Amino acid sequence: MSHLSRDNSKLISRLRRIKGQVEGVERALEADADCAEVLRQIASIRGAMTGLTNEVFEEHLRSHVVDAADDTAREQGAEEMIQILKSYLK
Amino acid sequence: MSHLSRDNSKLISRLRRIKGQVEGVERALEADADCAEVLRQIASIRGAMTGLTNEVFEEHLRSHVVDAADDTAREQGAEEMIQILKSYLK
Amino acid sequence: MSHLSRDNSKLISRLRRIKGQVEGVERALEADADCAEVLRQIASIRGAMTGLTNEVFEEHLRSHVVDAADDTAREQGAEEMIQILKSYLK
Amino acid sequence: MSHLSRDNSKLISRLRRIKGQVEGVERALEADADCAEVLRQIASIRGAMTGLTNEVFEEHLRSHVVDAADDTAREQGAEEMIQILKSYLK
Repeated sequence: MSHLSRDNSKLISRLRRIKGQVEGVERALEADADCAEVLRQIASIRGAMTGLTNEVFEEHLRSHVVDAADDTAREQGAEEMIQILKSYLK
Repeated sequence: MSHLSRDNSKLISRLRRIKGQVEGVERALEADADCAEVLRQIASIRGAMTGLTNEVFEEHLRSHVVDAADDTAREQGAEEMIQILKSYLK
Repeated sequence: MSHLSRDNSKLISRLRRIKGQVEGVERALEADADCAEVLRQIASIRGAMTGLTNEVFEEHLRSHVVDAADDTAREQGAEEMIQILKSYLK
Repeated sequence: MSHLSRDNSKLISRLRRIKGQVEGVERALEADADCAEVLRQIASIRGAMTGLTNEVFEEHLRSHVVDAADDTAREQGAEEMIQILKSYLK
């Protein structure tokens, strides 16, 4: 069982709210809403996604680096984190 | 009827794919997937959201600034775009 | 003379402050400062760069789109803005 | 002596190139360059800053988390990284 499990229900709740926000944009587009409003809704989803991202990064850092089983696992968890971080920071 | 209508179906298709990706992350979390995998999926959603954002910005710029009905409307569309842009570029 | 001229002195002042901040990081690195401190300084430079970016985008939108000489110039200014925006939003 | 020292000369070289790029934008503004060109130069500086940021994050993760002296130091290095990361991912 993965380390994410203990916090998974919290993350899943966040994700369902994000899905609800995505459906909100879908409805806004179907109703021909003004694009300024659509852009504000998308900005809000980006913010929610970023909050989720930070939580998962924190989880990864704690479980795969700080609490890694041994030095080899820790080195691997850190390397993986650096690689993923590069796809976020650009 | 809003200017978004002509391209709405394309944007709605993009948004449905994004919703599908969000559901994919939800399933990954429910299945206790590794967080590196979850982070990669989230990065992919961010990319898709950014593509959508660029399209809506382009629509806004064309409809509310370039093709604005008159100078007052154009000035207002530009001001609105600057304000929204500030919430994206940070 | 370019449209940027009227605001150039303000932008140049901003840029000189940014250069001063970059020199601050250089000194911090030469003095073997802690990397957490270095990362905070870099975050501050990113914020200053983003403020500058928003000002130049606003200038571009006003001068090359809103106040464009004619429809052809306006279309071209908008197209240019969209292309550059794509390199910022990612 | 801080852990950054071993790689400091490489980071300082990167930073000097960034300072040169900032001076390039300064000259462009003084010469009334087109703002599209200015925006492209700023985008290039952002890219260089991001490369530097990734290197310093990697250094921090290796020195203060992976190779931390003990568990308390490791926990503290991880906490610090999470806090700083939040100011970058937004």
